[in-house]
Amino acid sequence: MASVDVPVALLGYGTVGQAVNRLLNDSADDIERATGHRLRVVKALVRDLGKERDHRPSPGVLTDDFAEIADDPSIAVVAEVMGGLDPAGGYVLELLSRGKHVVSANKQLVARKGAELFAAASAAGVQLRFEASVCAAIPVIKVLRESLVVTNVHRVLGIVNGTTNFVLTEMERGKSYEEALAEAQARGFAEADPSDDISGADAAAKMAILATVAFNSRYALADVDVVGIDKIDPLDIAAARELDMVIRLVGAARLVDGQVDVRVGPALVDRRHPLAAVGGAFNAVMLQGDAIREITLEGPGAGGVETASAVIADMASVIGTMGTGFLQNDPVWRVLPRLSPGENRSPFYFHLSVDDRSGVLARVADALAEQDVSIARLLQHQNGDGAALHVVTHQTRQGALTAALETIAAMEEVRRDPLPFPVVSDRGIAEFGWA
Amino acid sequence: MASVDVPVALLGYGTVGQAVNRLLNDSADDIERATGHRLRVVKALVRDLGKERDHRPSPGVLTDDFAEIADDPSIAVVAEVMGGLDPAGGYVLELLSRGKHVVSANKQLVARKGAELFAAASAAGVQLRFEASVCAAIPVIKVLRESLVVTNVHRVLGIVNGTTNFVLTEMERGKSYEEALAEAQARGFAEADPSDDISGADAAAKMAILATVAFNSRYALADVDVVGIDKIDPLDIAAARELDMVIRLVGAARLVDGQVDVRVGPALVDRRHPLAAVGGAFNAVMLQGDAIREITLEGPGAGGVETASAVIADMASVIGTMGTGFLQNDPVWRVLPRLSPGENRSPFYFHLSVDDRSGVLARVADALAEQDVSIARLLQHQNGDGAALHVVTHQTRQGALTAALETIAAMEEVRRDPLPFPVVSDRGIAEFGWA
Repeated sequence: MASVDVPVALLGYGTVGQAVNRLLNDSADDIERATGHRLRVVKALVRDLGKERDHRPSPGVLTDDFAEIADDPSIAVVAEVMGGLDPAGGYVLELLSRGKHVVSANKQLVARKGAELFAAASAAGVQLRFEASVCAAIPVIKVLRESLVVTNVHRVLGIVNGTTNFVLTEMERGKSYEEALAEAQARGFAEADPSDDISGADAAAKMAILATVAFNSRYALADVDVVGIDKIDPLDIAAARELDMVIRLVGAARLVDGQVDVRVGPALVDRRHPLAAVGGAFNAVMLQGDAIREITLEGPGAGGVETASAVIADMASVIGTMGTGFLQNDPVWRVLPRLSPGENRSPFYFHLSVDDRSGVLARVADALAEQDVSIARLLQHQNGDGAALHVVTHQTRQGALTAALETIAAMEEVRRDPLPFPVVSDRGIAEFGWA
Repeated sequence: MASVDVPVALLGYGTVGQAVNRLLNDSADDIERATGHRLRVVKALVRDLGKERDHRPSPGVLTDDFAEIADDPSIAVVAEVMGGLDPAGGYVLELLSRGKHVVSANKQLVARKGAELFAAASAAGVQLRFEASVCAAIPVIKVLRESLVVTNVHRVLGIVNGTTNFVLTEMERGKSYEEALAEAQARGFAEADPSDDISGADAAAKMAILATVAFNSRYALADVDVVGIDKIDPLDIAAARELDMVIRLVGAARLVDGQVDVRVGPALVDRRHPLAAVGGAFNAVMLQGDAIREITLEGPGAGGVETASAVIADMASVIGTMGTGFLQNDPVWRVLPRLSPGENRSPFYFHLSVDDRSGVLARVADALAEQDVSIARLLQHQNGDGAALHVVTHQTRQGALTAALETIAAMEEVRRDPLPFPVVSDRGIAEFGWA
């Protein structure tokens, strides 16, 4: 098949956009060998034409007029690497409805407007690909949509925020939260304002996208149950170590009896679990399904070049599948209800700061037993003039635990409202050589 | 795009073939949503039409006549799930040259005849896909070819044999080699004759395929340097534990200054390295490249349903890219020389069983120093009436170490020829939060 030159356009020409242009130039031969086509950036939309840029494109490529891209019939594929909801969302929607394939690296856009964009793409017979919107170069979207096509994926577990994973790894090694965060900022893993990372909001957007794609049903970002790492107490870190676990910010999306549950929050992860081995600013996503048991993908979840690599892979895949009907139906083809949060089942960990008086433990145990919450492990430590109780439950309904903890929080010996974290220890594959 | 019924054929109807047919039936809707097409098995080639089968196909599907598939112009895609080199190799070559796309799960065939088959596919303008030939459902081939299209992958590290990984995990927990192997056989992870697993031959075939695809240059199976796990001494297992490492059968394919090196053998893996966390019969492959630093994929590397899932994903991808030129050029487009084995650079571990006499250690150290091999760590233990020295070197040329070990083996105090194993501890990403 003769090579055909394919003009492509970029919305945005910042760090990622420049890396896309550079990699497309440097790797033109590789892309041609893979796809039979040479991809060439002919337009890049920017706000300020005069701004200094490290990687300058050819003359005439930069434009501040969206119509030059939207109206150019020779441009079949556009990569949106500008970020933000507005005007990016309107641009993407217009490009799709005008029959252009779009690749987006925009997590917030796909998490908030994905369902509408997928429908628009499907209606226009074009593709919307968005690998780079989740965990940069880790190809979790491609694997979910193309490799696991006959596996009913029912659980997605992920460490999808590198900043918080770096902070937690450093805290595990003895740093304070403040020291660890400062170190992350010094190394460029955390923004000057890291609140979207710390609060779990960044991870929530990625998990909303993963849940939507894995279960083919829209899951609204606002419905993700989110707890940030600022809720972790140094006592929890020490207890985790003693329990042979680590604390990680874990995203979990599950399909339970036809209902979907998506949550992000600190979790205690058994040291033998693959997610416990994910250190530093790396990300990992574990996909569990019928035919494959589980597949875990790990790698750098951020970075300009890593993101650009994923954008280009998506562009190459679009070029390689245009006009075939592949991945062109709306991936959101059913409506699944949200699992009532109280029905979420998991083993949980929590700690209690209590006055050191006789009878406290018995009353706590009674409150748990009354809700059928059974204790798997218990640690008790002196903590100043009081005691810290660290409790790991067997699998239980979150609603039952919440009720028990309300009773416990009302006890006069209990100094602070306890906050439960889920425990991740099962791999669902006990029969496969794991205890 | 209207759904089109796509007739497909199978070569072989054993465990994998039956699972493919069953999954295609059960997941027809999912496949249609992904590809716009319904895949239907219309022919399955078997040797014995009368044999009892768990999953019987529709009447008329089974045939013992290859021509019924090769001559049928309506069949565009054929999955080879029969295994073996002959007649499978001849069948695949004929199907490709007659313009049919082929999906193969046949590791030995792709490892030994891959280059010829790729060339035939490219010449005929059809695709040969072979995800299931390496690590079953772990989508490493798709990720290498489609997601990492602009990343110059320069190193592939893998645990690609589940049987030996299970045996080594069990030995780490205290079982003897014989006990661990018996347990693997009892659980169905090892064949009655496990010699292909134990010797490293199975892993070598997978690494030859991975090297060929990753570096786009044919690497002959016969050129893979292979050491089996039967060469591991119980002393090595104990020493690894003391060094905070584990022993794994590791496959390594590297591109070094334009030369390729592929080897399989026991290696000591640092406990903090992701490959150390791969337990039981699981497989993992780590891909290191320019734009992505590294991506690791982990999952079950064997199993009938897992293999069938990968075969079907390949069929869906073929259907989704037919006629576009995607992945249709010969992936083996250059000829890279083999790295001279002595030039292989790594840190190494070896142990020496020596008579417990004064001066032995000094003479060993002298022999190493003479070849510029420097010692990173040393353990010495009493071992019966002698001593065991466990040595970890800094990174060194294998040729230098071999020369030193020849000198050492010739010493009269040394009781047995030492066998060095490489040490895997670097992630190449020290700057990314790893010490």
